Amino acid sequence: MDELESLKGFYDRYPEEWAAWREIVDTVEETAREFGFREIDAPSVEPTDLFRVKSGDEIVEQTYSFEDKGGREVTLIPEQTPTRSRLVQQRKDLGTPIKWFDTSKRWRYEAVQKGRDREFFQTDIDIFGVESVEADAEIIACAATIYEKLGVADAVEFRLNDRQLLDALLKAMDVEGSKDVMRVIDKKEKLSREEFLDNLELEGVDRATAEGIDELTAISGEMESALVELSDKAPEGDAADDAIERMHDLYDVLSAYGVEDMCTFDLSIVRGMDYYTGLVFEAFSTEGDLRALFGGGRYDHLIEQFGSREVPAIGFAFGYSTTMHLLKELGEWPDEALSTDAYVLTISDSVREIGLEYAKGLRSAGLTVETDLTGRSVGEQFGYADRINAEYTVVVGERDLNEGVVTVQNMDSGEEEQVPKNEVVENVLDRL
Amino acid sequence: MDELESLKGFYDRYPEEWAAWREIVDTVEETAREFGFREIDAPSVEPTDLFRVKSGDEIVEQTYSFEDKGGREVTLIPEQTPTRSRLVQQRKDLGTPIKWFDTSKRWRYEAVQKGRDREFFQTDIDIFGVESVEADAEIIACAATIYEKLGVADAVEFRLNDRQLLDALLKAMDVEGSKDVMRVIDKKEKLSREEFLDNLELEGVDRATAEGIDELTAISGEMESALVELSDKAPEGDAADDAIERMHDLYDVLSAYGVEDMCTFDLSIVRGMDYYTGLVFEAFSTEGDLRALFGGGRYDHLIEQFGSREVPAIGFAFGYSTTMHLLKELGEWPDEALSTDAYVLTISDSVREIGLEYAKGLRSAGLTVETDLTGRSVGEQFGYADRINAEYTVVVGERDLNEGVVTVQNMDSGEEEQVPKNEVVENVLDRL
Repeated sequence: MDELESLKGFYDRYPEEWAAWREIVDTVEETAREFGFREIDAPSVEPTDLFRVKSGDEIVEQTYSFEDKGGREVTLIPEQTPTRSRLVQQRKDLGTPIKWFDTSKRWRYEAVQKGRDREFFQTDIDIFGVESVEADAEIIACAATIYEKLGVADAVEFRLNDRQLLDALLKAMDVEGSKDVMRVIDKKEKLSREEFLDNLELEGVDRATAEGIDELTAISGEMESALVELSDKAPEGDAADDAIERMHDLYDVLSAYGVEDMCTFDLSIVRGMDYYTGLVFEAFSTEGDLRALFGGGRYDHLIEQFGSREVPAIGFAFGYSTTMHLLKELGEWPDEALSTDAYVLTISDSVREIGLEYAKGLRSAGLTVETDLTGRSVGEQFGYADRINAEYTVVVGERDLNEGVVTVQNMDSGEEEQVPKNEVVENVLDRL
Repeated sequence: MDELESLKGFYDRYPEEWAAWREIVDTVEETAREFGFREIDAPSVEPTDLFRVKSGDEIVEQTYSFEDKGGREVTLIPEQTPTRSRLVQQRKDLGTPIKWFDTSKRWRYEAVQKGRDREFFQTDIDIFGVESVEADAEIIACAATIYEKLGVADAVEFRLNDRQLLDALLKAMDVEGSKDVMRVIDKKEKLSREEFLDNLELEGVDRATAEGIDELTAISGEMESALVELSDKAPEGDAADDAIERMHDLYDVLSAYGVEDMCTFDLSIVRGMDYYTGLVFEAFSTEGDLRALFGGGRYDHLIEQFGSREVPAIGFAFGYSTTMHLLKELGEWPDEALSTDAYVLTISDSVREIGLEYAKGLRSAGLTVETDLTGRSVGEQFGYADRINAEYTVVVGERDLNEGVVTVQNMDSGEEEQVPKNEVVENVLDRL
């Protein structure tokens, strides 16, 4: 028959490759747990209407949306925020803060290209029900700690901004329609200075004000000095002062977390989505070409669209694909290799059952252990133990057993030790 | 707006409930790892043709099958065996044994009822490329060890049979079309004796032989004695003798694993699927009504339908829903509760940053730690620490700090200790 293939944009991950992915996912989840985020599990398929709330009909074009056999319009989730909004609305009894994480697959029907898969993992990490600098800082600190644990803190920068701050500054400059203006600012890095000014003028901003916006949104860099510069250049206004003060406060809390060096302030960071209301951030790789890893922010008025409760929220969805590319570039991607604690080698069929008892004992201690399943020769068994990267091989033979011993061999150094046959499990455990 | 709901047969699992599920999934995966199974990751959506190989067009009716935006017929995977078959065929370089596990969601479009969800988790555990008693025993031992670890070994029974043994016995009795006869045997427990005999006669089996089949397939129970009984009653034949011998051998290996007490022999176990070729087994709950938990077996001629390689295989898909019901019945379902190692309580805003440093230190040690995000009063913070089941609360106050100490409170006993302010992390770690 013809060879069957997976769909384009979907991945088959064999054990060696997946072992590396697993290490990254575990690091992300472990960090989330340490920060007190709690794991949830939610459907991978939702009524399409759930996504229309936030994204309108457009969403249907970019997702796996279809009619199920009962005539319901359903969609494979392209993101988890709408589902989480539903979950938060559903349970009025939940106390705050509600801190959730979850790693699961998401699907988008997009043209397949580097960094754009049709099936991909995300870990969503959110705090619901709290609007505070502490919550904002906890989210940034959690994200930054992930990269610290991955060993690439030096190569990652979190660019922070606050939509309320930007909004207050624009209002202090008498700019109307700050949302439209923010959309222009969002595109700033792709525009020349002239184009940027022209685009602002198209939104009804006069030339002098446009130049002022250009100057302000050029403020970026190390947080403390950038905020001083901003205070100097900012137009007068209580709202703007308050927002700058809040950003100072955020800096203090980030410093307490020890992640302030990974953070910069950048007044041009807006993030495309209309629903962000306060802090917004983008994580960038600072190695080679500056590339966005993922972003997040505060969205205090989104969840109320899904029900009767008003619930502030802040969070991000950790993106694995971009982080994988960064780790590979830096040589920090985990080894794609199997790992095995011990292989129990049986010299003859007569010692098979004793070998299995050793395997059982070692497994009971939580070790990864394999044994022969096919009556292989001693040489073949050593070859297999090597292929699965066994750290130790426990060689069980009749002659040894008659003398009351078993041989434990270090597969790296080749060093062997004769171990009393009742102390094999302890011996291997001591070595690991 | 109207409240949005999840689809019928799909579940929202909030942190408390999911914590219990997570414990079970972790136990299953930990066991698989100890036995040397390696985790893979594979697509959740596959071309519908992949499922037609094994299940024909019928599969489309019972699954989430649809046309994607590019006009491809695709299906949300209802099981992972076809995908695994594809993966095994794709990589001719894989050495054997190929031992894979994976926990992921599966979807079936079925009438929703107890134990039949539209979205559900399974952990598939398979050995590919090996046809041996050792491989069969390893699969059973792995499955049995899961229930040992879950603390319900006494309430679970693995009923084993061998299709080749049954086939050999039927052939020794001159029965033609053993597949059709096996289908009748598969239904035996739902039929009266008369109905069973009638059904066999409809398949062309004469009355005397049908009675012989009835007698043989009544053999079940403790493996050793059942096999002795079978040897006595079985018709003469080398193939049957060999198959009985193989089952004896399997018993010996299961004994070496120490799981023989959880296994019985039952010549009437066939399992519906045509593709099983050797060992078949079903795990039953022996508490209350006898209920099937899940099953598995050897399928040596399935994978060759997906490509050019002939690859023997044995495995099972662990079913969570049935196991959850069993654990709940036995009072062994894990507590549905949050767990938190420490809550860092700050008495005033002035000590916020010191509190965060303690939180950071405790988190670095891998602990789950929460702090105040909303400027709550001391009483409210204690209430929150209690709600998240914090084991210890680290109370950080200015007066204490001036005296060089911090108070660590055991939230269970209420006992308090003043701890030197530089030894807080060590102190909490020592207690846990």
